[in-house]
Amino acid sequence: MSCNYKLAISYDGTRYYGWEHQPNTDMTIQGKIETVFTRMLQGEKDDETVETVKIIAAGRTDAGVHARAMIANVVLDTVKSPEEIMEYANTYLPEDISINSVSIASDRFHARYKALGKTYRYTLWTGKAKPVFDRKYVTVIEKPLDIKAMEEAAKHLIGTHDFKSFCGNSKMKKSTVRCLDTINIEESGSYVRIYYHGNSFLQNMVRILTGTLLQVGEGERSPDEIKEVLESKDRNMAGPTAPPGGLTLMKVDY
Amino acid sequence: MSCNYKLAISYDGTRYYGWEHQPNTDMTIQGKIETVFTRMLQGEKDDETVETVKIIAAGRTDAGVHARAMIANVVLDTVKSPEEIMEYANTYLPEDISINSVSIASDRFHARYKALGKTYRYTLWTGKAKPVFDRKYVTVIEKPLDIKAMEEAAKHLIGTHDFKSFCGNSKMKKSTVRCLDTINIEESGSYVRIYYHGNSFLQNMVRILTGTLLQVGEGERSPDEIKEVLESKDRNMAGPTAPPGGLTLMKVDY
Repeated sequence: MSCNYKLAISYDGTRYYGWEHQPNTDMTIQGKIETVFTRMLQGEKDDETVETVKIIAAGRTDAGVHARAMIANVVLDTVKSPEEIMEYANTYLPEDISINSVSIASDRFHARYKALGKTYRYTLWTGKAKPVFDRKYVTVIEKPLDIKAMEEAAKHLIGTHDFKSFCGNSKMKKSTVRCLDTINIEESGSYVRIYYHGNSFLQNMVRILTGTLLQVGEGERSPDEIKEVLESKDRNMAGPTAPPGGLTLMKVDY
Repeated sequence: MSCNYKLAISYDGTRYYGWEHQPNTDMTIQGKIETVFTRMLQGEKDDETVETVKIIAAGRTDAGVHARAMIANVVLDTVKSPEEIMEYANTYLPEDISINSVSIASDRFHARYKALGKTYRYTLWTGKAKPVFDRKYVTVIEKPLDIKAMEEAAKHLIGTHDFKSFCGNSKMKKSTVRCLDTINIEESGSYVRIYYHGNSFLQNMVRILTGTLLQVGEGERSPDEIKEVLESKDRNMAGPTAPPGGLTLMKVDY
Protein backbone atom coordinates (compact mmCIF):
# COMPACT_ATOMS: atom_id res chain seq x y z
CA MET A 1 0.00 0.00 0.00
CA SER A 2 1.32 3.42 -0.93
CA CYS A 3 2.18 5.74 1.89
CA ASN A 4 3.52 9.28 2.10
CA TYR A 5 6.83 9.49 3.97
CA LYS A 6 8.54 12.52 5.46
CA LEU A 7 12.33 12.47 5.26
CA ALA A 8 15.06 14.54 6.91
CA ILE A 9 18.19 14.60 4.78
CA SER A 10 21.77 15.82 5.27
CA TYR A 11 24.14 16.32 2.45
CA ASP A 12 27.53 17.71 1.64
CA GLY A 13 26.70 19.49 -1.62
CA THR A 14 30.33 19.93 -2.74
CA ARG A 15 30.25 17.27 -5.47
CA TYR A 16 26.70 17.94 -6.69
CA TYR A 17 24.92 20.14 -9.22
CA GLY A 18 22.43 21.09 -6.53
CA TRP A 19 19.29 19.44 -5.23
CA GLU A 20 17.18 19.46 -8.35
CA HIS A 21 17.19 16.64 -10.87
CA GLN A 22 18.81 17.68 -14.16
CA PRO A 23 19.03 16.01 -17.53
CA ASN A 24 22.45 14.67 -18.57
CA THR A 25 23.86 14.26 -15.08
CA ASP A 26 23.21 11.89 -12.22
CA MET A 27 25.11 14.17 -9.83
CA THR A 28 22.15 15.83 -8.15
CA ILE A 29 20.94 15.08 -4.63
CA GLN A 30 17.39 14.50 -5.83
CA GLY A 31 18.62 12.17 -8.59
CA LYS A 32 20.74 10.09 -6.20
CA ILE A 33 17.88 9.63 -3.73
CA GLU A 34 15.26 8.90 -6.39
CA THR A 35 17.51 6.28 -7.95
CA VAL A 36 17.99 4.49 -4.63
CA PHE A 37 14.25 4.48 -3.82
CA THR A 38 13.35 3.34 -7.33
CA ARG A 39 15.80 0.43 -7.06
CA MET A 40 14.41 -0.43 -3.66
CA LEU A 41 10.89 -0.78 -5.05
CA GLN A 42 12.10 -2.64 -8.15
CA GLY A 43 13.90 -5.10 -5.89
CA GLU A 44 10.86 -5.62 -3.67
CA LYS A 45 8.57 -6.22 -6.62
CA ASP A 46 11.23 -7.95 -8.72
CA ASP A 47 10.05 -5.70 -11.51
CA GLU A 48 12.39 -3.39 -13.36
CA THR A 49 9.55 -1.44 -14.93
CA VAL A 50 8.50 0.18 -11.65
CA GLU A 51 8.05 3.89 -12.30
CA THR A 52 10.78 6.26 -11.16
CA VAL A 53 10.07 7.51 -7.66
CA LYS A 54 9.61 11.30 -7.40
CA ILE A 55 10.72 13.05 -4.26
CA ILE A 56 9.54 16.55 -3.27
CA ALA A 57 11.85 18.76 -1.23
CA ALA A 58 11.14 21.86 0.84
CA GLY A 59 13.34 23.78 -1.57
CA ARG A 60 16.07 23.47 -4.13
CA THR A 61 19.60 24.15 -2.99
CA ASP A 62 22.14 25.41 -5.52
CA ALA A 63 25.18 23.50 -6.72
CA GLY A 64 27.71 23.22 -3.89
CA VAL A 65 25.27 24.21 -1.11
CA HIS A 66 24.85 21.87 1.87
CA ALA A 67 21.93 20.83 4.08
CA ARG A 68 21.80 19.63 7.66
CA ALA A 69 18.07 18.95 7.59
CA MET A 70 16.46 19.25 4.20
CA ILE A 71 12.88 18.00 4.50
CA ALA A 72 11.29 16.04 1.68
CA ASN A 73 8.31 13.80 1.10
CA VAL A 74 7.95 10.78 -1.10
CA VAL A 75 5.13 8.36 -1.82
CA LEU A 76 6.38 4.76 -1.68
CA ASP A 77 4.53 1.50 -2.16
CA THR A 78 6.80 -0.60 0.04
CA VAL A 79 6.61 -3.41 2.57
CA LYS A 80 9.48 -1.88 4.52
CA SER A 81 9.10 -0.07 7.84
CA PRO A 82 10.36 3.53 8.09
CA GLU A 83 13.47 2.24 9.90
CA GLU A 84 14.11 -0.27 7.14
CA ILE A 85 13.64 2.38 4.44
CA MET A 86 16.20 4.56 6.20
CA GLU A 87 18.67 1.70 6.59
CA TYR A 88 18.29 0.67 2.95
CA ALA A 89 18.73 4.22 1.67
CA ASN A 90 21.78 4.93 3.85
CA THR A 91 23.42 1.72 2.68
CA TYR A 92 23.07 2.59 -1.00
CA LEU A 93 23.37 6.37 -0.96
CA PRO A 94 26.88 7.83 -1.34
CA GLU A 95 28.69 8.79 1.86
CA ASP A 96 27.94 12.49 1.39
CA ILE A 97 24.15 12.03 1.49
CA SER A 98 22.37 10.71 4.59
CA ILE A 99 18.73 10.14 5.44
CA ASN A 100 18.49 11.08 9.11
CA SER A 101 14.85 10.18 9.70
CA VAL A 102 11.91 8.61 7.92
CA SER A 103 8.38 8.88 9.27
CA ILE A 104 4.88 8.23 7.96
CA ALA A 105 3.20 11.52 7.05
CA SER A 106 -0.37 12.48 6.27
CA ASP A 107 -1.29 12.13 2.60
CA ARG A 108 -1.66 15.90 2.52
CA PHE A 109 1.88 16.56 3.71
CA HIS A 110 3.79 18.31 0.93
CA ALA A 111 7.35 19.29 1.80
CA ARG A 112 7.32 22.44 -0.34
CA TYR A 113 3.76 23.76 -0.04
CA LYS A 114 3.52 23.13 3.69
CA ALA A 115 6.86 24.71 4.59
CA LEU A 116 6.33 27.80 6.76
CA GLY A 117 9.90 28.98 7.09
CA LYS A 118 13.54 28.10 6.65
CA THR A 119 16.79 28.75 8.45
CA TYR A 120 19.98 29.09 6.46
CA ARG A 121 23.45 29.52 7.89
CA TYR A 122 26.32 31.12 6.06
CA THR A 123 29.73 30.40 7.63
CA LEU A 124 32.74 32.66 7.21
CA TRP A 125 36.29 31.99 8.38
CA THR A 126 38.40 35.03 9.25
CA GLY A 127 41.45 33.35 10.85
CA LYS A 128 45.09 33.61 9.77
CA ALA A 129 45.38 29.84 10.01
CA LYS A 130 43.34 27.80 7.55
CA PRO A 131 40.10 25.93 8.29
CA VAL A 132 41.62 22.57 7.43
CA PHE A 133 38.83 20.32 8.72
CA ASP A 134 35.78 22.20 7.49
CA ARG A 135 37.26 23.92 4.50
CA LYS A 136 34.41 22.69 2.30
CA TYR A 137 31.80 24.31 4.55
CA VAL A 138 33.19 27.79 5.10
CA THR A 139 34.16 30.79 3.00
CA VAL A 140 37.56 32.24 3.84
CA ILE A 141 37.62 36.02 4.28
CA GLU A 142 41.03 37.68 4.06
CA LYS A 143 40.11 41.00 5.67
CA PRO A 144 38.90 41.50 9.24
CA LEU A 145 35.14 42.08 9.36
CA ASP A 146 33.29 44.92 11.04
CA ILE A 147 30.51 42.85 12.55
CA LYS A 148 28.72 45.87 14.07
CA ALA A 149 28.45 47.47 10.64
CA MET A 150 27.12 44.22 9.21
CA GLU A 151 24.51 44.03 11.96
CA GLU A 152 23.46 47.59 11.26
CA ALA A 153 23.16 46.83 7.56
CA ALA A 154 21.17 43.67 8.32
CA LYS A 155 18.52 45.72 10.13
CA HIS A 156 17.53 47.31 6.82
CA LEU A 157 16.84 43.88 5.38
CA ILE A 158 14.57 42.59 8.13
CA GLY A 159 10.87 42.58 7.38
CA THR A 160 8.67 42.14 4.34
CA HIS A 161 10.31 43.70 1.30
CA ASP A 162 10.62 43.30 -2.41
CA PHE A 163 13.99 41.50 -2.54
CA LYS A 164 14.35 41.83 -6.31
CA SER A 165 17.87 43.27 -5.87
CA PHE A 166 18.83 40.03 -4.13
CA CYS A 167 17.31 37.64 -6.65
CA GLY A 168 19.69 35.64 -8.84
CA ASN A 169 17.02 34.90 -11.43
CA SER A 170 16.78 37.94 -13.70
CA LYS A 171 13.82 36.42 -15.54
CA MET A 172 11.77 35.95 -12.36
CA LYS A 173 8.18 36.83 -13.24
CA LYS A 174 6.50 35.94 -9.98
CA SER A 175 6.52 38.16 -6.93
CA THR A 176 9.92 38.83 -5.39
CA VAL A 177 8.37 39.98 -2.11
CA ARG A 178 9.57 37.91 0.83
CA CYS A 179 9.52 38.17 4.60
CA LEU A 180 12.92 37.94 6.24
CA ASP A 181 12.32 37.61 10.01
CA THR A 182 15.83 37.58 11.41
CA ILE A 183 19.48 37.85 10.52
CA ASN A 184 21.72 36.85 13.41
CA ILE A 185 25.46 37.25 13.15
CA GLU A 186 27.46 35.15 15.59
CA GLU A 187 31.22 35.37 16.11
CA SER A 188 33.04 32.44 17.63
CA GLY A 189 36.83 32.36 17.42
CA SER A 190 37.74 32.72 13.76
CA TYR A 191 34.22 31.83 12.62
CA VAL A 192 31.47 34.30 11.74
CA ARG A 193 28.13 32.58 11.22
CA ILE A 194 25.19 34.44 9.70
CA TYR A 195 21.79 32.87 10.35
CA TYR A 196 18.89 33.88 8.11
CA HIS A 197 15.29 32.98 8.89
CA GLY A 198 12.43 33.77 6.56
CA ASN A 199 9.24 32.38 5.09
CA SER A 200 10.84 31.56 1.78
CA PHE A 201 13.84 32.65 -0.24
CA LEU A 202 14.48 33.68 -3.83
CA GLN A 203 17.11 32.03 -6.00
CA ASN A 204 20.62 32.78 -4.65
CA MET A 205 19.03 35.21 -2.18
CA VAL A 206 21.01 34.17 0.89
CA ARG A 207 24.26 34.19 -1.02
CA ILE A 208 23.61 37.64 -2.51
CA LEU A 209 22.55 38.98 0.89
CA THR A 210 25.80 37.56 2.31
CA GLY A 211 27.92 38.99 -0.50
CA THR A 212 26.38 42.40 0.14
CA LEU A 213 26.79 42.21 3.92
CA LEU A 214 30.42 41.25 3.35
CA GLN A 215 30.96 44.47 1.39
CA VAL A 216 29.72 46.33 4.45
CA GLY A 217 31.85 44.20 6.81
CA GLU A 218 34.94 44.89 4.71
CA GLY A 219 34.27 48.64 4.73
CA GLU A 220 33.51 48.93 1.02
CA ARG A 221 29.99 50.14 1.68
CA SER A 222 28.20 51.87 4.52
CA PRO A 223 25.42 50.04 6.38
CA ASP A 224 22.85 52.60 5.20
CA GLU A 225 23.60 51.94 1.54
CA ILE A 226 21.83 48.61 1.96
CA LYS A 227 18.54 50.46 2.20
CA GLU A 228 19.19 51.99 -1.21
CA VAL A 229 20.16 48.63 -2.63
CA LEU A 230 16.87 47.17 -1.43
CA GLU A 231 14.84 50.08 -2.81
CA SER A 232 16.59 50.04 -6.19
CA LYS A 233 15.12 46.61 -7.04
CA ASP A 234 18.20 46.19 -9.20
CA ARG A 235 20.38 43.11 -8.89
CA ASN A 236 23.37 45.12 -10.10
CA MET A 237 23.19 47.34 -7.03
CA ALA A 238 23.68 44.43 -4.62
CA GLY A 239 26.99 42.71 -3.88
CA PRO A 240 28.36 39.56 -5.49
CA THR A 241 26.84 36.12 -4.94
CA ALA A 242 28.89 34.61 -2.09
CA PRO A 243 30.37 31.16 -2.84
CA PRO A 244 28.06 28.17 -2.30
CA GLY A 245 30.32 26.16 0.04
CA GLY A 246 29.67 28.45 3.02
CA LEU A 247 25.90 27.98 2.83
CA THR A 248 23.92 25.32 4.68
CA LEU A 249 20.15 24.82 4.95
CA MET A 250 19.75 24.20 8.68
CA LYS A 251 16.01 23.78 9.31
CA VAL A 252 12.59 23.85 7.69
CA ASP A 253 9.54 24.81 9.78
CA TYR A 254 6.09 23.28 9.29
CA MET B 1 70.66 35.04 10.56
CA SER B 2 69.44 31.52 11.12
CA CYS B 3 66.87 31.01 13.79
CA ASN B 4 65.01 27.99 15.18
CA TYR B 5 61.23 28.28 14.80
CA LYS B 6 58.52 26.32 16.56
CA LEU B 7 55.45 25.60 14.42
CA ALA B 8 51.95 24.35 15.23
CA ILE B 9 50.42 22.59 12.24
CA SER B 10 46.96 21.24 11.39
CA TYR B 11 46.36 18.87 8.56
CA ASP B 12 43.71 16.67 7.04
CA GLY B 13 45.79 13.58 6.32
CA THR B 14 43.26 11.98 3.94
CA ARG B 15 45.21 12.67 0.74
CA TYR B 16 48.70 12.07 2.14
CA TYR B 17 51.11 9.18 2.61
CA GLY B 18 51.65 10.32 6.19
CA TRP B 19 53.88 12.93 7.78
CA GLU B 20 57.27 11.58 6.83
CA HIS B 21 59.05 12.48 3.63
CA GLN B 22 59.22 9.54 1.22
CA PRO B 23 61.07 9.02 -2.02
CA ASN B 24 58.98 8.93 -5.21
CA THR B 25 56.05 10.95 -3.89
CA ASP B 26 55.52 14.57 -2.98
CA MET B 27 52.30 13.69 -1.15
CA THR B 28 53.62 13.79 2.41
CA ILE B 29 52.93 16.54 4.91
CA GLN B 30 56.62 16.98 5.64
CA GLY B 31 57.42 17.15 1.94
CA LYS B 32 54.76 19.79 1.26
CA ILE B 33 55.96 22.03 4.10
CA GLU B 34 59.66 21.60 3.32
CA THR B 35 59.03 22.50 -0.32
CA VAL B 36 57.23 25.71 0.63
CA PHE B 37 59.94 26.81 3.08
CA THR B 38 62.71 25.96 0.62
CA ARG B 39 61.03 28.06 -2.06
CA MET B 40 60.55 30.89 0.42
CA LEU B 41 64.31 31.00 1.15
CA GLN B 42 65.20 30.61 -2.54
CA GLY B 43 62.96 33.54 -3.33
CA GLU B 44 64.45 35.73 -0.59
CA LYS B 45 68.02 34.98 -1.67
CA ASP B 46 67.16 34.79 -5.37
CA ASP B 47 69.22 31.60 -5.34
CA GLU B 48 67.81 28.30 -6.52
CA THR B 49 70.65 26.33 -4.98
CA VAL B 50 69.56 26.99 -1.41
CA GLU B 51 69.62 23.67 0.44
CA THR B 52 66.34 21.91 1.08
CA VAL B 53 64.90 22.94 4.42
CA LYS B 54 64.50 20.08 6.92
CA ILE B 55 61.63 20.16 9.35
CA ILE B 56 61.52 18.06 12.54
CA ALA B 57 58.14 16.97 13.88
CA ALA B 58 57.11 15.69 17.31
CA GLY B 59 56.20 12.42 15.64
CA ARG B 60 55.30 10.79 12.38
CA THR B 61 51.64 10.26 11.67
CA ASP B 62 50.61 7.40 9.37
CA ALA B 63 49.01 7.77 5.97
CA GLY B 64 45.47 9.11 6.36
CA VAL B 65 45.91 10.25 9.98
CA HIS B 66 45.10 13.88 10.87
CA ALA B 67 46.59 16.44 13.25
CA ARG B 68 45.04 19.43 15.01
CA ALA B 69 48.31 20.60 16.53
CA MET B 70 51.37 18.77 15.30
CA ILE B 71 54.42 20.56 16.68
CA ALA B 72 57.56 20.90 14.59
CA ASN B 73 60.74 22.92 14.53
CA VAL B 74 62.72 24.24 11.62
CA VAL B 75 65.87 26.31 11.28
CA LEU B 76 65.39 29.11 8.74
CA ASP B 77 67.73 31.84 7.59
CA THR B 78 65.05 34.37 6.70
CA VAL B 79 64.39 38.09 6.90
CA LYS B 80 60.70 37.41 7.52
CA SER B 81 58.98 37.83 10.89
CA PRO B 82 57.19 34.80 12.39
CA GLU B 83 53.86 36.32 11.23
CA GLU B 84 55.20 36.74 7.71
CA ILE B 85 56.53 33.17 7.65
CA MET B 86 53.08 31.92 8.67
CA GLU B 87 51.32 34.04 6.08
CA TYR B 88 53.70 32.95 3.32
CA ALA B 89 53.37 29.27 4.22
CA ASN B 90 49.58 29.36 4.44
CA THR B 91 49.36 31.06 1.07
CA TYR B 92 51.42 28.38 -0.68
CA LEU B 93 50.49 25.25 1.28
CA PRO B 94 47.50 23.25 0.01
CA GLU B 95 44.15 23.89 1.68
CA ASP B 96 44.39 20.74 3.81
CA ILE B 97 47.59 21.84 5.59
CA SER B 98 47.68 24.92 7.82
CA ILE B 99 50.40 26.50 9.93
CA ASN B 100 48.53 27.80 12.97
CA SER B 101 51.41 29.48 14.75
CA VAL B 102 55.09 30.30 14.25
CA SER B 103 57.31 31.44 17.13
CA ILE B 104 61.02 31.83 17.72
CA ALA B 105 62.32 28.96 19.83
CA SER B 106 65.55 28.35 21.69
CA ASP B 107 68.29 26.78 19.58
CA ARG B 108 67.99 23.71 21.78
CA PHE B 109 64.29 23.21 21.08
CA HIS B 110 63.83 19.91 19.23
CA ALA B 111 60.23 18.98 18.49
CA ARG B 112 60.83 15.24 18.83
CA TYR B 113 63.42 14.94 21.61
CA LYS B 114 61.79 17.55 23.84
CA ALA B 115 58.27 16.17 23.54
CA LEU B 116 57.06 14.94 26.94
CA GLY B 117 53.68 13.54 25.96
CA LYS B 118 51.01 13.36 23.30
CA THR B 119 47.25 13.28 23.15
CA TYR B 120 45.57 11.33 20.38
CA ARG B 121 41.84 11.18 19.73
CA TYR B 122 40.10 8.36 17.92
CA THR B 123 36.57 9.23 16.79
CA LEU B 124 33.87 6.63 16.19
CA TRP B 125 30.40 7.20 14.75
CA THR B 126 27.67 4.85 15.87
CA GLY B 127 24.57 6.56 14.43
CA LYS B 128 22.04 5.15 11.98
CA ALA B 129 22.31 8.30 9.90
CA LYS B 130 25.65 8.97 8.26
CA PRO B 131 28.31 11.47 9.39
CA VAL B 132 28.08 13.48 6.19
CA PHE B 133 30.12 16.50 7.25
CA ASP B 134 33.00 14.82 9.06
CA ARG B 135 33.00 11.50 7.28
CA LYS B 136 36.76 11.77 6.63
CA TYR B 137 37.48 12.15 10.35
CA VAL B 138 35.44 9.36 11.91
CA THR B 139 35.19 5.60 11.67
CA VAL B 140 31.66 4.28 11.24
CA ILE B 141 30.73 1.43 13.59
CA GLU B 142 27.72 -0.62 12.57
CA LYS B 143 27.04 -2.29 15.93
CA PRO B 144 26.13 -0.52 19.17
CA LEU B 145 29.11 -0.29 21.52
CA ASP B 146 29.29 -1.38 25.15
CA ILE B 147 31.19 1.63 26.45
CA LYS B 148 31.38 0.31 30.02
CA ALA B 149 33.11 -2.84 28.82
CA MET B 150 35.53 -0.74 26.77
CA GLU B 151 36.33 1.39 29.81
CA GLU B 152 36.94 -1.72 31.87
CA ALA B 153 39.26 -3.09 29.20
CA ALA B 154 41.07 0.24 28.98
CA LYS B 155 41.99 0.04 32.67
CA HIS B 156 44.27 -2.92 31.91
CA LEU B 157 46.18 -0.79 29.42
CA ILE B 158 46.88 2.17 31.69
CA GLY B 159 50.38 2.41 33.13
CA THR B 160 53.88 1.47 32.04
CA HIS B 161 53.79 -1.76 30.06
CA ASP B 162 55.53 -3.53 27.25
CA PHE B 163 53.10 -2.71 24.44
CA LYS B 164 54.69 -5.15 21.96
CA SER B 165 51.25 -6.68 21.21
CA PHE B 166 50.12 -3.23 20.06
CA CYS B 167 53.12 -2.39 17.88
CA GLY B 168 52.63 -2.39 14.13
CA ASN B 169 56.33 -2.74 13.40
CA SER B 170 57.16 -6.45 13.72
CA LYS B 171 60.86 -5.71 13.22
CA MET B 172 61.01 -3.22 16.10
CA LYS B 173 64.34 -3.81 17.88
CA LYS B 174 64.18 -0.96 20.39
CA SER B 175 62.18 -1.12 23.60
CA THR B 176 58.43 -1.40 23.20
CA VAL B 177 57.83 -0.28 26.79
CA ARG B 178 55.67 2.83 26.96
CA CYS B 179 53.70 4.71 29.58
CA LEU B 180 50.02 5.20 28.77
CA ASP B 181 48.64 7.67 31.35
CA THR B 182 44.99 7.86 30.44
CA ILE B 183 42.35 6.50 28.12
CA ASN B 184 39.15 8.54 28.28
CA ILE B 185 36.09 7.40 26.39
CA GLU B 186 33.50 10.13 25.79
CA GLU B 187 30.05 9.58 24.31
CA SER B 188 28.24 12.48 22.72
CA GLY B 189 25.20 11.78 20.58
CA SER B 190 26.27 9.32 17.91
CA TYR B 191 29.97 10.02 18.51
CA VAL B 192 32.29 8.00 20.71
CA ARG B 193 35.66 9.68 21.17
CA ILE B 194 38.58 7.84 22.73
CA TYR B 195 41.36 10.08 24.05
CA TYR B 196 44.77 8.53 24.65
CA HIS B 197 47.54 10.32 26.53
CA GLY B 198 51.02 8.89 26.93
CA ASN B 199 54.70 9.76 26.86
CA SER B 200 55.21 8.33 23.41
CA PHE B 201 53.55 5.80 21.14
CA LEU B 202 54.70 2.86 19.02
CA GLN B 203 53.93 2.57 15.32
CA ASN B 204 50.16 2.08 14.80
CA MET B 205 49.78 1.74 18.58
CA VAL B 206 46.71 3.95 19.00
CA ARG B 207 44.98 2.32 16.05
CA ILE B 208 45.69 -1.23 17.32
CA LEU B 209 44.57 -0.25 20.84
CA THR B 210 41.37 1.13 19.29
CA GLY B 211 40.82 -1.95 17.13
CA THR B 212 41.18 -4.12 20.23
CA LEU B 213 38.90 -1.95 22.40
CA LEU B 214 36.34 -2.11 19.60
CA GLN B 215 36.33 -5.91 19.81
CA VAL B 216 35.44 -5.54 23.48
CA GLY B 217 32.82 -2.87 22.74
CA GLU B 218 31.20 -5.11 20.14
CA GLY B 219 31.12 -8.05 22.56
CA GLU B 220 33.63 -10.18 20.70
CA ARG B 221 36.03 -10.21 23.63
CA SER B 222 35.73 -9.76 27.36
CA PRO B 223 37.42 -6.76 29.02
CA ASP B 224 39.73 -9.04 30.99
CA GLU B 225 41.12 -10.65 27.85
CA ILE B 226 42.96 -7.41 27.21
CA LYS B 227 45.28 -8.21 30.10
CA GLU B 228 46.24 -11.46 28.36
CA VAL B 229 46.74 -9.65 25.06
CA LEU B 230 49.13 -7.24 26.77
CA GLU B 231 51.03 -10.03 28.53
CA SER B 232 51.33 -12.16 25.38
CA LYS B 233 53.60 -9.58 23.71
CA ASP B 234 52.22 -10.95 20.47
CA ARG B 235 50.75 -8.64 17.84
CA ASN B 236 48.53 -11.47 16.59
CA MET B 237 46.71 -11.56 19.93
CA ALA B 238 45.55 -7.92 19.63
CA GLY B 239 42.70 -6.68 17.45
CA PRO B 240 42.94 -5.23 13.96
CA THR B 241 44.52 -1.86 13.22
CA ALA B 242 41.58 0.59 13.19
CA PRO B 243 41.34 2.73 10.01
CA PRO B 244 43.52 5.87 9.93
CA GLY B 245 40.75 8.41 9.20
CA GLY B 246 39.35 8.28 12.75
CA LEU B 247 42.68 9.23 14.31
CA THR B 248 43.83 12.76 15.09
CA LEU B 249 46.93 13.97 16.94
CA MET B 250 45.46 16.60 19.26
CA LYS B 251 48.30 17.94 21.38
CA VAL B 252 52.00 17.58 22.13
CA ASP B 253 53.31 18.47 25.60
CA TYR B 254 56.71 20.06 26.23
